[in-house]
Amino acid sequence: MKIAIAQINPTIGDLPGNAQIILAAAHRAVAQGTRLLLTPELSLCGYPPRDLLFNPSFVEAMGMTLQQLARDLPPNLAVLVGTVEQNLKAHVTGGKSLFNSIALLEKGKVKQFFHKRLLPTYDVFDENRYFEPGLQANYFTLDNIHIGVTICEDLWNDEEFWGKRSYATNPIADLAILGVDLIVNLSASPYSFGKQRFREAMLRHSAMRFQQPVIYANQVGGNDDLIFDGFSFALNRQGEIRCRGRGFESDLVIIEFDEAQRDLKLGSVAPAYETEDEEIWHALVLGVRDYARKCHFSKVVLGLSGGIDSALVAAIATAALGKENVLGVLMPSPYSSEHSIGDALALGENLGIKTTTIPIGDLMQGFDRSLADLFGDTEFGLAEENIQSRIRGNLLMAIANKFGYLLLSTGNKSEIAVGYCTLYGDMNGGLAVIADVPKTRVYSLCDWLNSNGEVIPQNIITKAPSAELKPGQLDQDSLPPYDILDDILQRLIHNHQSAVQIAAAGHDPVIVDRVIQMVARAEFKRRQAPPGLKITDRAFGTGWRMPIASNWVAVKNAYQTKAFAIPTLVCWDGQDAHPRIK
Amino acid sequence: MKIAIAQINPTIGDLPGNAQIILAAAHRAVAQGTRLLLTPELSLCGYPPRDLLFNPSFVEAMGMTLQQLARDLPPNLAVLVGTVEQNLKAHVTGGKSLFNSIALLEKGKVKQFFHKRLLPTYDVFDENRYFEPGLQANYFTLDNIHIGVTICEDLWNDEEFWGKRSYATNPIADLAILGVDLIVNLSASPYSFGKQRFREAMLRHSAMRFQQPVIYANQVGGNDDLIFDGFSFALNRQGEIRCRGRGFESDLVIIEFDEAQRDLKLGSVAPAYETEDEEIWHALVLGVRDYARKCHFSKVVLGLSGGIDSALVAAIATAALGKENVLGVLMPSPYSSEHSIGDALALGENLGIKTTTIPIGDLMQGFDRSLADLFGDTEFGLAEENIQSRIRGNLLMAIANKFGYLLLSTGNKSEIAVGYCTLYGDMNGGLAVIADVPKTRVYSLCDWLNSNGEVIPQNIITKAPSAELKPGQLDQDSLPPYDILDDILQRLIHNHQSAVQIAAAGHDPVIVDRVIQMVARAEFKRRQAPPGLKITDRAFGTGWRMPIASNWVAVKNAYQTKAFAIPTLVCWDGQDAHPRIK
Repeated sequence: MKIAIAQINPTIGDLPGNAQIILAAAHRAVAQGTRLLLTPELSLCGYPPRDLLFNPSFVEAMGMTLQQLARDLPPNLAVLVGTVEQNLKAHVTGGKSLFNSIALLEKGKVKQFFHKRLLPTYDVFDENRYFEPGLQANYFTLDNIHIGVTICEDLWNDEEFWGKRSYATNPIADLAILGVDLIVNLSASPYSFGKQRFREAMLRHSAMRFQQPVIYANQVGGNDDLIFDGFSFALNRQGEIRCRGRGFESDLVIIEFDEAQRDLKLGSVAPAYETEDEEIWHALVLGVRDYARKCHFSKVVLGLSGGIDSALVAAIATAALGKENVLGVLMPSPYSSEHSIGDALALGENLGIKTTTIPIGDLMQGFDRSLADLFGDTEFGLAEENIQSRIRGNLLMAIANKFGYLLLSTGNKSEIAVGYCTLYGDMNGGLAVIADVPKTRVYSLCDWLNSNGEVIPQNIITKAPSAELKPGQLDQDSLPPYDILDDILQRLIHNHQSAVQIAAAGHDPVIVDRVIQMVARAEFKRRQAPPGLKITDRAFGTGWRMPIASNWVAVKNAYQTKAFAIPTLVCWDGQDAHPRIK
Repeated sequence: MKIAIAQINPTIGDLPGNAQIILAAAHRAVAQGTRLLLTPELSLCGYPPRDLLFNPSFVEAMGMTLQQLARDLPPNLAVLVGTVEQNLKAHVTGGKSLFNSIALLEKGKVKQFFHKRLLPTYDVFDENRYFEPGLQANYFTLDNIHIGVTICEDLWNDEEFWGKRSYATNPIADLAILGVDLIVNLSASPYSFGKQRFREAMLRHSAMRFQQPVIYANQVGGNDDLIFDGFSFALNRQGEIRCRGRGFESDLVIIEFDEAQRDLKLGSVAPAYETEDEEIWHALVLGVRDYARKCHFSKVVLGLSGGIDSALVAAIATAALGKENVLGVLMPSPYSSEHSIGDALALGENLGIKTTTIPIGDLMQGFDRSLADLFGDTEFGLAEENIQSRIRGNLLMAIANKFGYLLLSTGNKSEIAVGYCTLYGDMNGGLAVIADVPKTRVYSLCDWLNSNGEVIPQNIITKAPSAELKPGQLDQDSLPPYDILDDILQRLIHNHQSAVQIAAAGHDPVIVDRVIQMVARAEFKRRQAPPGLKITDRAFGTGWRMPIASNWVAVKNAYQTKAFAIPTLVCWDGQDAHPRIK
């Protein structure tokens, strides 16, 4: 039996558009002799639909679309479609009012629903917010082949592989006991670098452990901050790769189940990317392309400072949208170096994009004059530096508003982490393209990009980074060297290490403490940042939920030295410990 | 037996500071002959700690603080403290690694832990992200009184009261079967207007139904967007109010359990507020005061346009922080009317705050000159309007940065809903004070404020609202009248009604559709908005999780008219339906 994976790129909420893509894939699959078509988790509405699910008319429309799709599909093709299903007994049994479901469509009808059993509620996932978990093993029989159905997280609880259990049940174990021939997993699994290798290793372990062939169908495309990488694949019961779809592109992957062998035959295996840099590059290009397309922008604008961050973002945007759709704006100040302007122009030429130059010196003087009375003889400082950045932010937004362009912001993860960026200034934009890319990765991406000839002018890569907001300023005056900073941030953000643990790894405790303070203090900026494309296992954004008004970082050192104590208040009369103003 | 409720105002993550407040309350309670002290849910770390809980050193420090607090407390007082407890078997049984717990401290020891059973994962709540639910009924015995312990949501599942079940179990029913004498509920229940009446009605129903006296202890204080209103109270088994703490202030409330009657005696009952406006006013004042205090700001700055929104915010800030700590900045443009300047100055005088005036005409001309080449002979439009707003935003942030002030933004919920505001302009600020206050409510709050003498100059209330970004501009040129707009928004945002349902309530379908489109299109602005103080049951912010790149609103009408269809793609070759650029 031939089975096809429709690795599709849905738009959130575009029910008829997504159904159209499924329908087109179905016709294509039938033309190749396919009996069963797999689509990703929630393929009808796109993943993640988030609070659209609280809208009853949206849920109702999804049901109508599903019924219509069943009628429109070729009659001899069975299709698994991701959709939501109402939990009609929720008011009696308790629980959420929806299931995250897969519908089996065949012969013009919706034949059966399967409910997702394990609901991820960590990182960017909020599935317990919307869904009730299914309680039963899911399977159906097609042409005498018993097919187990799992949805994304359902296969992420192999306690042998993980060394721990994340959920009480393991759906693949239940299906193996039932004796199915084949397990399909319909997913919408967001990208982070290295994740595909992890997915294949994990499912290889489960395939071998339970002696089950597994077909994994993933969504592809960018939806706000999340990039779905595709890379759908199948494993036989020995855990060997039998097929793999392309990364970061829609695809239709055909795989054959051998009814005599009760196992999957070898099909077409698209290669994985050779380097992390190449993989991340394609992820970011897709993220920009889809955010622009799905928000109905064809053109983008960004500031070109002559620095490496804006250079990389300009290159990504050019690859995503075409050079004719990218406008780079140079906004030199009296503090800008000659090489900044030259480097930015050289970059624009390399990419073939249009650039324009708007000096900001006069506007800076205008603000100085306007604030002269109030600021008096205070010294030049952060306020004045930020004014420059916000003048540039205003100019860029004016251009974006005037011509209907999408403004891309260019800050990297390292500077967003420590707040080395100006809110309402260089943080401005509809999408923060490299907000999850640490500075050291920015360098390696540019090196990779230049490996077949110069794209990013070499001087942009080799010169010392500077915000150029005052004379002679260098990033390294305010921050530790980026290799040190990025290692501290990795330990802090991804590994949840304490200051003591990070210092024990060889870092200067004073620097570690300063970085931790900076990260905490920048929380208010990050809360107002544009969505940033997620490429790591922990990005700022929907998967990072920190209080702003918090005092943990200020008190933590007392615990690390075991020197903490609970002081005694002199008196407390039932009022706040702090003085109140009536 | 005397029981005290410590209605405290913790700071998130300030473990020693919060322990200090509990300790002070304990001494005070003992001085009044109290045997048992109740503190709110997660009182040791403050609610909500959010992703701080992923930090193992934070969890460890909480445990150390709890042990130390047990040793420091007066020996004859039993104290219930909110804390987290590790789920040590999570790796074996599956599930989250923490419980949301209450610890019973007595005689220098941590005697017992109780785990929260019902975990809210809706609106602003993410408790399934962090916690495993407890499976057992929680109770302990003190001086022969059997006390059932519940944590916040544990008492929000009375299916008789709600008319439906939200969770499979009902902890109060379990405790009633066990035959406890008294049920305590330790909460951190965020404010929304009218909620206290709802809480009292709900718990009255449960108290009567299960014949159980109930003591409800709530947190007070502002934590980022959330305001906790306090109003702790107790009910006897007839459901009668036996005590009530103050709203929006810390309090120590004493209530006596009559051991012969096995019921609560009448204690001191603080009055509820007479009007919603008065209640909302106090909520907003507390929200501003605590956000400033907990972020270590003593002074605030805001723009005074002469309009009603900034007038209300200035009044709130003055009440919260004192007139000497509020700076109002007038930034008139050539489009500003004379009355705007006069009204703003009159407001400043009424409040007794300092004002300063910075005209922006020259800066506007500067931007016009800078953009002249690029903009050519395009017409004056939204881009030019936004430039003005962003000049003002830049000036305000420069003042905030220079003097270490907190900038308050002044947009109301109606304009933030439809995007009638400028990102990086008037949306700038560390806190959006009235972001959850609809425009019609802004008016009623100002009327209430003026009821004992003019605070807001009458002309600010009576004149037609205008952004004054072009000559003769009025809000009503772009938006429906605010009473109509707010009713549509209420139905859309709070009641989840469809366009058809809203129109059926008497609204013009064309206007309804335009409002729905505007709300959807403004999502990218809201994503970058500062935290806004929540005063309704559905605020934009942490409890509003909408995709930006979504197509639902564009396709919804086809479903409402049942005219939808799934179009057929001419061809699909496994590539995206949309053209791709290599």
